[in-house]
Amino acid sequence: MDGAALEGGVRRSHVMRYRIAFVDCDPAQIVHFSNYFRWFDTSSREFFSACGVPSWRDTERASGIIGTPLVDAQASFRNPATYGEDLEIETWVEQWNTKSFVMRHVARRGETLIAEGRDIRVFAKRDAADPLRIRAVEIPAEYREMCG
Amino acid sequence: MDGAALEGGVRRSHVMRYRIAFVDCDPAQIVHFSNYFRWFDTSSREFFSACGVPSWRDTERASGIIGTPLVDAQASFRNPATYGEDLEIETWVEQWNTKSFVMRHVARRGETLIAEGRDIRVFAKRDAADPLRIRAVEIPAEYREMCG
Amino acid sequence: MDGAALEGGVRRSHVMRYRIAFVDCDPAQIVHFSNYFRWFDTSSREFFSACGVPSWRDTERASGIIGTPLVDAQASFRNPATYGEDLEIETWVEQWNTKSFVMRHVARRGETLIAEGRDIRVFAKRDAADPLRIRAVEIPAEYREMCG
Amino acid sequence: MDGAALEGGVRRSHVMRYRIAFVDCDPAQIVHFSNYFRWFDTSSREFFSACGVPSWRDTERASGIIGTPLVDAQASFRNPATYGEDLEIETWVEQWNTKSFVMRHVARRGETLIAEGRDIRVFAKRDAADPLRIRAVEIPAEYREMCG
Repeated sequence: MDGAALEGGVRRSHVMRYRIAFVDCDPAQIVHFSNYFRWFDTSSREFFSACGVPSWRDTERASGIIGTPLVDAQASFRNPATYGEDLEIETWVEQWNTKSFVMRHVARRGETLIAEGRDIRVFAKRDAADPLRIRAVEIPAEYREMCG
Repeated sequence: MDGAALEGGVRRSHVMRYRIAFVDCDPAQIVHFSNYFRWFDTSSREFFSACGVPSWRDTERASGIIGTPLVDAQASFRNPATYGEDLEIETWVEQWNTKSFVMRHVARRGETLIAEGRDIRVFAKRDAADPLRIRAVEIPAEYREMCG
Repeated sequence: MDGAALEGGVRRSHVMRYRIAFVDCDPAQIVHFSNYFRWFDTSSREFFSACGVPSWRDTERASGIIGTPLVDAQASFRNPATYGEDLEIETWVEQWNTKSFVMRHVARRGETLIAEGRDIRVFAKRDAADPLRIRAVEIPAEYREMCG
Repeated sequence: MDGAALEGGVRRSHVMRYRIAFVDCDPAQIVHFSNYFRWFDTSSREFFSACGVPSWRDTERASGIIGTPLVDAQASFRNPATYGEDLEIETWVEQWNTKSFVMRHVARRGETLIAEGRDIRVFAKRDAADPLRIRAVEIPAEYREMCG
């Protein structure tokens, strides 16, 4: 489940496996692109779990952190894929800033590159005055360390 | 449904209205970001319909064109939104190239900017040898003219 | 938005309009059946809003009620539908019991019956000991009256 | 992946494993019920694959069969589940009729029953005159035999 790659140092990454479902595909017979964003997001949460970061339910109780909402998301779609095919989605943190961080995702089917993504995320808490508002907080040192 | 904005000329745009559903929201109580990509895609198809481009079912029968698959998609998420709220999503073509084009999308809730997106798309036909492969074709002059 | 039908008395119903999106359709070119359940659920919330029932965010703050989770759902699929088509989904409460109630949904495209559904739902609060557990409460008389 | 249960004979069943994703959960923090219908449908296709039935792409080319659309679907939701939890979904054919068949699905988290479903499905081909219309055909003896 866990890999580590040397890139001027050691990078922690995680690989999630997913078999594409019929319902993930559209009338063009191929995966609707929006699903890659769903899977990259799921892979992001699997990455955190593999690194030891508790569920957002538990972090909310402990420190008010509700998760890592996205500020920006981008993906490139390299080759079409369809149902019954197996994807491997590799996810890692490319860069840590003070209040934001950059995640990268690569989806492959065997040796074939299917899609690549990059998100900018923040750790967020709810606004005390309005629980539907969220605000970015400094990245907890503890989680940053866990995620390598 | 249709607007036109002067931007060194006349630009054709389309506004789609959508009421956010409970199922669009995640445990953080706000819209899951992947839904903006779904809605931008739907707004893209609504834009084409408003411009007079036939359904992809009809274009496939007439000329083999199965739609406008994405090569790249990007979005920025400016403010959270939640169920019961009404969005207006404005969509237009920002740039036409020979084989690709750039669409822009802006989602607003009243005066509040919620999300902005940009896709790179191609008009595509199926590969004769392998119907799951698709290939970009030159943008049909007719559709380009319709879409302004 | 609101209709009333005589059925040995007056019944309050609500009609939601929805244009089917490309992403709602599967490789068979038609709506994936699971989407009817999503739309029936959205229509259920629209019904409550039309009747004056506050958002579940507000009911949770006021009385702890987090919504009307389903105990059982059933639907029959009468005719296929595809993207670009407009549905009208009519929703009403068929029966009120002490702790549960039955909702009915009918989706039509013009005069054509597309799908029919029936849910059994409860009004629920979170379990104090375990917020992921929920328990049915007696149907609030106030909401029952609002919903006719 | 494959089980067999004695029930006045041998029944072929298939178990699909799925880890619940954040995006599968709604503001009540639990899986939105519509996702069980998605997963049961995916499990249905996995069942067919495990039994040796080709992809619907291949059956469409070979015999015109586009899949097994649903005539009716029903599910009961026994216990809530949330993201990060692992489900096992067991699927089998309960009954074969001439033109329709009944599938059963049971989702469990460890020993806990989460949801149960039952679909009525047909094998379908496209209508020659209108490719968006589909019609039920007699269940191919070959597939029925494969699926036990």
